[in-house]
Amino acid sequence: MNKGAATKDLIIQKSAEIFNTVGYEASSLQHIMKATGLKKGGIYNHFQNKDEIAIASFEYSFQLVLKRFKDELAHCSSSHEKLLAIINVFESFADKPVVRGGCPIFNTAMDATDYHPELKAKAQSAINTLIKYVEIKIEEGKIEGEFRDNIMASDFALFLVSTLEGALMIARVNDNTEPIKHVAKMLTSYIKTQIIK
Amino acid sequence: MNKGAATKDLIIQKSAEIFNTVGYEASSLQHIMKATGLKKGGIYNHFQNKDEIAIASFEYSFQLVLKRFKDELAHCSSSHEKLLAIINVFESFADKPVVRGGCPIFNTAMDATDYHPELKAKAQSAINTLIKYVEIKIEEGKIEGEFRDNIMASDFALFLVSTLEGALMIARVNDNTEPIKHVAKMLTSYIKTQIIK
Repeated sequence: MNKGAATKDLIIQKSAEIFNTVGYEASSLQHIMKATGLKKGGIYNHFQNKDEIAIASFEYSFQLVLKRFKDELAHCSSSHEKLLAIINVFESFADKPVVRGGCPIFNTAMDATDYHPELKAKAQSAINTLIKYVEIKIEEGKIEGEFRDNIMASDFALFLVSTLEGALMIARVNDNTEPIKHVAKMLTSYIKTQIIK
Repeated sequence: MNKGAATKDLIIQKSAEIFNTVGYEASSLQHIMKATGLKKGGIYNHFQNKDEIAIASFEYSFQLVLKRFKDELAHCSSSHEKLLAIINVFESFADKPVVRGGCPIFNTAMDATDYHPELKAKAQSAINTLIKYVEIKIEEGKIEGEFRDNIMASDFALFLVSTLEGALMIARVNDNTEPIKHVAKMLTSYIKTQIIK
């Protein structure tokens, strides 16, 4: 990687953390300058404005989210292991977030609503991709005969992501991982008794 | 109500909407001046700073949330009707929010984390009050013999609030009430088959 690309990467990585902890509005060029050790010009060489940095940071964070799912699921040999691994990955966002500050998809979705249409569109697409990812894993399990035929994959995927993301937020506002651990345990038990054949 | 108290109420009501749509950081005195038609001095007569306005606005919004639950549940004669009414109230936040901009508890919880300890404490207390409120309704149903004895009221209350608040966020980022409607339907069906005796 050349020096320019490395600098750009550094800006994206450091900014991802800033946006994910401070939120879009409160994140400033000063924060980014301090975190990267770069001057204003060094940042504006690579990005036109804060919006461009926010979008690049969000894309970077989302790729880390997807990577964690793919890495975890790569160890699984069956569809039911995969579905339970998905729950574990959501749970891991509470104590080992891909970027400090919690789930970047949810944070950005809440943050970007109404005032930053491009960032909102990115968050929208990310959350729907995540739901679709879970849906596909459920469909695969049905095809392979591991899950009950009457399960509506799209409904259950939406339900699962809603529950886990809601619990992540409750955990975050309480500074306590118990809520997400509890909910993950309940979903796991539900899957074992109601989804798996 | 005297004129001073009426002005203070106006500031709180208008600010609640601003904080709930724009977020804490982006909400400015200019927004509040514009929405209330008051000058800077007219606002600072009643509040020392933005934080004080944010906290008063949040308390006002939270009371509206609780009021909606109480009003809806007042029409119910049985515990299972009450539990289903709770789901309907969450669902109503998507198309008829108590304050424009979605669920003020969740929005504030996401917004306030890390940087505004007093507001965060308020959001924390509000979300835990909401979970406790649901828990009590489930306990009542168990005592009255309407719900199964093996239901863990605190676990199911956390599960229910997580799922509905998560779905509200997914609905909000998609500008579409379908996700919350879907999830509400699934929870209702679960309650009818697994919770009610």
